[in-house]
Amino acid sequence: MTPTAMEELRRRLAQVSDLDAAGSLLSWEQETMMPPEAARVRGLQLATLAGLAHELFTDARTGDLLDAARPADDTEEAIVRVARRDHGKATRLPTTFVEERTRAQNEAHHAWIEARTSSDFGAFAPHLSTMMDLARREADLLGYEDHPYDALLDTYEPGMRASQVRAVFDDLRDRTLPLLRRITAAGDAADYSVLTRSFPYDAQKAFAWDVAGRAFGLSGDFARQDESAHPFQSNFSRSDLRITTRVQDYWPTCCFGTWHETGHAMYERGVSERWERTPVSRGASLGVHESQSRMFENLLGRSLPFWERYFPELQKVAPEVTDGLDAAALYRAVNRVQPSLIRVEADEVTYNFHTLLRFELELGLLEGTLSVKELPEAWNAKMKEYLGLDVPDDAQGVLQDIHWSAGLIGYFPTYTLGNLLSVQLLEAAQRDPAVAAGVANAEYGPLLAWLVTNVHQHGRSLTPGELTEQATGRPLTADPYVAYLHTKYGDIYELN
Amino acid sequence: MTPTAMEELRRRLAQVSDLDAAGSLLSWEQETMMPPEAARVRGLQLATLAGLAHELFTDARTGDLLDAARPADDTEEAIVRVARRDHGKATRLPTTFVEERTRAQNEAHHAWIEARTSSDFGAFAPHLSTMMDLARREADLLGYEDHPYDALLDTYEPGMRASQVRAVFDDLRDRTLPLLRRITAAGDAADYSVLTRSFPYDAQKAFAWDVAGRAFGLSGDFARQDESAHPFQSNFSRSDLRITTRVQDYWPTCCFGTWHETGHAMYERGVSERWERTPVSRGASLGVHESQSRMFENLLGRSLPFWERYFPELQKVAPEVTDGLDAAALYRAVNRVQPSLIRVEADEVTYNFHTLLRFELELGLLEGTLSVKELPEAWNAKMKEYLGLDVPDDAQGVLQDIHWSAGLIGYFPTYTLGNLLSVQLLEAAQRDPAVAAGVANAEYGPLLAWLVTNVHQHGRSLTPGELTEQATGRPLTADPYVAYLHTKYGDIYELN
Repeated sequence: MTPTAMEELRRRLAQVSDLDAAGSLLSWEQETMMPPEAARVRGLQLATLAGLAHELFTDARTGDLLDAARPADDTEEAIVRVARRDHGKATRLPTTFVEERTRAQNEAHHAWIEARTSSDFGAFAPHLSTMMDLARREADLLGYEDHPYDALLDTYEPGMRASQVRAVFDDLRDRTLPLLRRITAAGDAADYSVLTRSFPYDAQKAFAWDVAGRAFGLSGDFARQDESAHPFQSNFSRSDLRITTRVQDYWPTCCFGTWHETGHAMYERGVSERWERTPVSRGASLGVHESQSRMFENLLGRSLPFWERYFPELQKVAPEVTDGLDAAALYRAVNRVQPSLIRVEADEVTYNFHTLLRFELELGLLEGTLSVKELPEAWNAKMKEYLGLDVPDDAQGVLQDIHWSAGLIGYFPTYTLGNLLSVQLLEAAQRDPAVAAGVANAEYGPLLAWLVTNVHQHGRSLTPGELTEQATGRPLTADPYVAYLHTKYGDIYELN
Repeated sequence: MTPTAMEELRRRLAQVSDLDAAGSLLSWEQETMMPPEAARVRGLQLATLAGLAHELFTDARTGDLLDAARPADDTEEAIVRVARRDHGKATRLPTTFVEERTRAQNEAHHAWIEARTSSDFGAFAPHLSTMMDLARREADLLGYEDHPYDALLDTYEPGMRASQVRAVFDDLRDRTLPLLRRITAAGDAADYSVLTRSFPYDAQKAFAWDVAGRAFGLSGDFARQDESAHPFQSNFSRSDLRITTRVQDYWPTCCFGTWHETGHAMYERGVSERWERTPVSRGASLGVHESQSRMFENLLGRSLPFWERYFPELQKVAPEVTDGLDAAALYRAVNRVQPSLIRVEADEVTYNFHTLLRFELELGLLEGTLSVKELPEAWNAKMKEYLGLDVPDDAQGVLQDIHWSAGLIGYFPTYTLGNLLSVQLLEAAQRDPAVAAGVANAEYGPLLAWLVTNVHQHGRSLTPGELTEQATGRPLTADPYVAYLHTKYGDIYELN
């Protein structure tokens, strides 16, 4: 029997999904355990999988099937809608452009590594100019109404506009910069030595994983934990989740990093099985994804009820760490606010200034109001303005992140969009008294159920905007996050 | 510029190779570390990778390219020759046949698991009948001159005929059965308790891996060791090798299993880089592969010079095992001859009777001179005849191996072909005095170099027959193996 167009489309999308999953597995393995000499051929294998998936997804037959497919229900309607959106974006970029960009990314990436090592922005500047040219051309190819940045942002945050981001970010900045000033003015007499007390590496990993299971529901039945230089989450199906962590003497890196990646993993776990092996079967956007990782890491993992619950567990496995302390002291120590140069080490109050700065600079570069040559000076000026810091060299400044070398323009805002959404979602969830009572006692079962219902299960069938409105009753706003910071840190730093 | 047919062919073969490698990696990961709930979707992903590789390799364009390709040198000539051979075999099996066989294999595999658990051959019998029907049809589709078995055997041992196997195996049986009778008649007063003395699992693995590196050249730079229920070797390029092992109180399982898989791995390691990402880039056949694993495991790993060299190492890491012993005593203990029911636990003298038995039964089933119903009785009669054992139940008899449930008819002889070739190759290699001196002192550098030159580097560019003649100066024969057994075990059991 000849399959219908819908059946053939689903078969084809499943093949693309399987090729993507295989590529993800090869990449995960490369970062966690691959023997070093395997790298060269592994790169070729990854390119083949990506190339075949791209060919299969963008060829004319897929377009015909998308036009001819008759969805039987809302599951299939979402599959066709999301696949059509992806297909449109993928086919608007000619193969010659994609190849040119891949070559330029490779060169820029290697130049960035060298430039960062020698802290020499000049050596990276021509590559960044190329990446910005490519970004402008990509925006033109993809198309946009208001601003070229919208076309790029849409890749990571479907439907989001630069103007919305700017409005929310300006509001956030204006209302949290005074808070930061008050915190730094208040001084800090707390003792942070607990954060580097002796905590054997294996015990760190075991504690972080154990709590990820008991607090947040992660399980060896459908997930595993490994080590990698840079922690990440990856998944090959909703029952095949991977998180990685790294361990160091500063033990919070392993714990909070693990719970961060657990947030990402549990999002993928919660996506409805009906989207299996389709393009709907992933988180709605980078921002929504980050809302889940940040919620687990910060809103829950750095909360007082969490440590009241898990401090005794920590005492059992790391008595040297907890010696002479109680849950409140530990809570205090893991919530230090301290302006610093490096984004990935920043606390909840200062973190967003790092992304704001990058967003503002990206807009300037894309519009041409800022030249690549002027970038380090502009970076350093904003670091001084927002965080009061002098940047000693480019390696600790404009060269610190990998993103621009990979052409990821429009990516940084999603970190802060995720922070904002995390509090907005948690606030909405706690309108349910069972959720609120659970959160107050570090019992997250009701919250997880709420998240699956209101966030996870939908996968990409809702845009981030639709999801935010449905789940919280209003569009994304900085209000909950600003209120959260004022309450939490006003209390910690005794500002009120 | 339009690529030439040869260039397009090579690109396509590289894609097929990359898909195969990705599938191998997904399978390896499934056996070693995958979370259990991931199994269902992983199966679908593996099917997609295999299906796309098959489509790409068998479509009409590949045939046209094979006809049009103009090889530039002998590297490319071998690529076209081997690819054409594979393409011929792959296209002679219609998709409908392959799909029917895959379904039948799945059903047979599940039926076999249940039948073995309840030791009930009757429950498996109809599935075995189906597998034999499919094997006969497959032989007809593939074509053969003398015997349908040739067509099946050719998949595992290109160019080998059933008549050759029968001649060599009859010779082997006639000359080693009397030896086995003399050994069992001689009695055995040796103390084998050393083989189950306390040897912590981690220390077993570390010792086996360490010796695999120092004796046989395996290295973490291009290989890794993991655990799995059934040990195997897998590889995703010649610099991306994996071996697995299992640990149990009977510690020789881990050591000799590791060195066995190391033999397979070092073969793949030695294949010339010029065949990279082509169908030539694998071992010549299962038999030649087994010759390398058996050489490392048995001819070297169970030799006296080996233990004279590595006994002091074992003393360091497992003093409880070596307490009161010397190298000679250990050598004696790991070379016990004892007829047993299970093939995978058999020693060097009895092992081949297990495969002979299966080969003879397969021939009977394929020719129709033996019915499936009569099979258990025939099995048990041969076990009595060759090894003097009564088979208590089918689980320990005709149901013990996975092969027939997977439709692998013609596979078993390759184990013994490998055993025979291992000694024939080692004998030829030791005509070089440097190799012989090295083997006598457990310094295997010269032997490894000889193997790379005469066996490994050629990949599939030579057939097993060509390789055997080139490397040893004569066709495969049982003579060296028979002489090896008589010398080694005549000495151990003081028969001479």
